[in-house]
Amino acid sequence: MAVNLTEPHDLLPVSGAQWAVVDAAIKAAGRPDLVLLQLDAGSVVSAVFTRNAFAAAPVRAAREAVERGSVRMLLVNSGNANAGVGSQGEIDVGECCRRVAEVYGVASQQVAPFSTGVIGQRLPMERLLSAIDRLAETEAAGSWLDAARAIMTTDTAAKGASRQITTAEGQTVTLTGIAKGSGMIRPDMATMLAFAATDAGVSQADLDAAIREANDQSFSCISVDGDTSTNDAFCLAATARGPRLGTDEEDDWRLFVEALTSLAQELAQAIVRDGEGATRFITLQINGASSVAEARAMAFTIAHSPLVKTACFAGDPNWGRILAAVGRGPVEDLSVDNVSIHLDDVAVVTGGSLDPDYREANGAAVMARSEYTIKVNLGRGEESATVWTSDLSYEYVRINADYRS
Amino acid sequence: MAVNLTEPHDLLPVSGAQWAVVDAAIKAAGRPDLVLLQLDAGSVVSAVFTRNAFAAAPVRAAREAVERGSVRMLLVNSGNANAGVGSQGEIDVGECCRRVAEVYGVASQQVAPFSTGVIGQRLPMERLLSAIDRLAETEAAGSWLDAARAIMTTDTAAKGASRQITTAEGQTVTLTGIAKGSGMIRPDMATMLAFAATDAGVSQADLDAAIREANDQSFSCISVDGDTSTNDAFCLAATARGPRLGTDEEDDWRLFVEALTSLAQELAQAIVRDGEGATRFITLQINGASSVAEARAMAFTIAHSPLVKTACFAGDPNWGRILAAVGRGPVEDLSVDNVSIHLDDVAVVTGGSLDPDYREANGAAVMARSEYTIKVNLGRGEESATVWTSDLSYEYVRINADYRS
Repeated sequence: MAVNLTEPHDLLPVSGAQWAVVDAAIKAAGRPDLVLLQLDAGSVVSAVFTRNAFAAAPVRAAREAVERGSVRMLLVNSGNANAGVGSQGEIDVGECCRRVAEVYGVASQQVAPFSTGVIGQRLPMERLLSAIDRLAETEAAGSWLDAARAIMTTDTAAKGASRQITTAEGQTVTLTGIAKGSGMIRPDMATMLAFAATDAGVSQADLDAAIREANDQSFSCISVDGDTSTNDAFCLAATARGPRLGTDEEDDWRLFVEALTSLAQELAQAIVRDGEGATRFITLQINGASSVAEARAMAFTIAHSPLVKTACFAGDPNWGRILAAVGRGPVEDLSVDNVSIHLDDVAVVTGGSLDPDYREANGAAVMARSEYTIKVNLGRGEESATVWTSDLSYEYVRINADYRS
Repeated sequence: MAVNLTEPHDLLPVSGAQWAVVDAAIKAAGRPDLVLLQLDAGSVVSAVFTRNAFAAAPVRAAREAVERGSVRMLLVNSGNANAGVGSQGEIDVGECCRRVAEVYGVASQQVAPFSTGVIGQRLPMERLLSAIDRLAETEAAGSWLDAARAIMTTDTAAKGASRQITTAEGQTVTLTGIAKGSGMIRPDMATMLAFAATDAGVSQADLDAAIREANDQSFSCISVDGDTSTNDAFCLAATARGPRLGTDEEDDWRLFVEALTSLAQELAQAIVRDGEGATRFITLQINGASSVAEARAMAFTIAHSPLVKTACFAGDPNWGRILAAVGRGPVEDLSVDNVSIHLDDVAVVTGGSLDPDYREANGAAVMARSEYTIKVNLGRGEESATVWTSDLSYEYVRINADYRS
């Protein structure tokens, strides 16, 4: 059960970016699992990828394609990660890209491939190649919502969002994105993928800067269980069918980056809301840090604490666990007497120990909510960070301890 | 249910170290919860403490007492951690130490206090002081096993071990130690405590070196859930009733440090075996690292992965999760083609991808065992590290999500 998450019903099309969606029979029969995003000539593409050293073959291929420039096709399959299969993975992904190139009349280097699903099994190449042949047929044309559904593995709801901004000259720019969850809903399924497009015209350098900024404030700020997949990717295309945007028009550019960041945050939060077995959506807000890096590291220390996460599941205002996590966190010379902890607006710890006015009923009332914020002030400086996470439930264990089958 | 752990029945007394055990009614009625270890004059005491910034008041007091030297009494209560209660904690712990000093006719600075239990509640001072008065009575005299039982919080079995060595001159040296678990068996209970004594005569400098070496190879190598308590401590006393040992007699000293390390490892492993909800005892052995620190950090990355831990619970040879954890681990420039993974003696990953001879049935046979080793060779150097951990089960969540009551 996802936390306050419903399927998006208002995703805006993006001019110059067209999805095709088919069933390649990689996942259980009857569920679309292969999608292609076709981008107009002149589109610019940026992406950020997993830092896992065991990056899967498609990740390496997509990274090369994006770095080379001139990407025209994003090919995404769900149900099989094409990871941990040695050099066969590279051979297979190359063959898929060549087939897409043949069907659409582009160069195979213009195809960026993405995969999510089981690790350690070969792609079902025969079914995949035959499905690629069907992608160009009219009935394969699909919406952003169709694509959002097809990239799901064991996500419980499709994830997508749109934004529009109006430039100083009154022109409209549209951004739409979709994502799939980072949770391992079944063993071996462990990937966060997000794809977004805008009709704006943006230079490669500016788009690279924009995706890095947006990613830093969104997908880099979430954690379900602290594990990083071999296949994670966030990819953004600018099709140049709408207004031209760039850092030289500062106000429009700021609006654009803010819209992109907000879009990415909504997708990132949707991934947490649909985290494995999640029953709570928890915001960790660290203030008073001496650096953003310190604030973020402290937020993740708390977010990854199984003891904090199980207390959240129980709705138990067990502030001793939060305090203990802060105390073992990544700050060498923490002055504990300056630390305060709030649950939403309830002061729990002030001056390093239990606030004299704290009543357990007040803490319990906050932690009974499906969404709340744990605020920690380190009392060391002016820097802050925000991280979103979920709780640790029986269902998380059930999902992840289920045998693959 | 602990993994292959039974109560010790052969703990050897240590000359010059005598336990007293009483029921102070801190824990549920009828269970001893206050113990005192009385050390002969001339004893030398060393200790290592939690690095949690929110160290509890007794930890700060015990650290000062040990640093000052001349500790004669270790006072330990279970059921209340005396943590997170502000300056009141220091006042209360001071009063306890003064009362012990009065009863036994020592200076209060010679009493080192230790607490484990609920965080954020004041010590029940009236009951505690009255119980201290009873410690010196004959019927309070207890064995190491009595003490091991009394320091338990929600441990399921008492933990203790003994070692004896024979010096080059044919003299016998005895070491005995007890410990309580690091698991949070109920919310707020989160402390590992270990106490050991030897009848050897050891200088302060040598004993400090010995406890650091033993701790580094034992309690520093375990993790149940990655959380560090506010009250952790490992304390070692040398009563000087037996032979004198020191670095100047190299062979005897080596035997002694090895025996101490082995003793501490048995206690540390017992804590993991009795970890919250543990159903498996897993050894992580990292070889081929470029440094011990790198090997250990990689071991903890795998040990803390909820996805690996749930796969262990399920007995599912989900090697993709181990591989993904290695890939996101703390090695910047890992050459994945050099990485191999074994489950006991079954080669799973060689040369960075699935071993061609691997059969899932072989991996499943290992992971069905209650104890096994996950071996990862990073192929970068000659250094190694070993870490012990447990799995992540429904029971872990149940234990930690239970309301405090």
